[in-house]
Amino acid sequence: MTKDEKAVLDANDAFYAAFAAREPEVMDRLWAKRAPVACVHPGWSPLRGRDEVVASWHGILSGGGAPPISCSRATAHLLGDAAYVICIEHVPGGLLVATNTFVREDGEWRLVHHHAGPLMRPIEEPDAPQGETMH
Amino acid sequence: MTKDEKAVLDANDAFYAAFAAREPEVMDRLWAKRAPVACVHPGWSPLRGRDEVVASWHGILSGGGAPPISCSRATAHLLGDAAYVICIEHVPGGLLVATNTFVREDGEWRLVHHHAGPLMRPIEEPDAPQGETMH
Repeated sequence: MTKDEKAVLDANDAFYAAFAAREPEVMDRLWAKRAPVACVHPGWSPLRGRDEVVASWHGILSGGGAPPISCSRATAHLLGDAAYVICIEHVPGGLLVATNTFVREDGEWRLVHHHAGPLMRPIEEPDAPQGETMH
Repeated sequence: MTKDEKAVLDANDAFYAAFAAREPEVMDRLWAKRAPVACVHPGWSPLRGRDEVVASWHGILSGGGAPPISCSRATAHLLGDAAYVICIEHVPGGLLVATNTFVREDGEWRLVHHHAGPLMRPIEEPDAPQGETMH
């Protein structure tokens, strides 16, 4: 694993840590300040623009509707100063697949896009324990 | 719209044209040759690596299982030499949201990642006519 891949996976872990701990202010800081931000929550219409995306996370994390969540099988895919991570999200209702896209801004890997949707045809996906993050 | 945004949307259109026309060889050429390729078909486990992804498209487009598809509301989001497009996919069973990620390789915008999942909470999404591509 390269240094950049490790850094991107660390940024991905920080995203799930903020999600699991329901910390909207931390979540806010993880998103890009200048690059174009968007988000597709499971089943939702796409949200475009930083204000709309950050507001959605504030609502989810502050409103009591945030499910317990953990992430497994994260892999980082580098595209120069951008990168995407694919991982499995474990929530009480089942499994989701997420793509999290990052950009390097001010020396930090920051989220620009999150897209999560249901996993209905698991292939070789073991029953990973809740709360464990595996790379 | 910048020249790059237009070029990325053109590459996105080419993806849906190859999908709709069921042309696996054309689809193959649209995917990156060197950048890390992955794909999340609706509900599937993630596919990682060019061989696995291209093989899945050959199976879908050659096997008679490819649904009629069209794309609407595509928006391009530039990240330097990478970009992502968010759009709504219209298939017979309903609507999907897709994120398509591209990189610039050899002067062309090529797909590196496709992630599609169901749209269950449409917001301000009109009944776009099937077969129409709107930007």
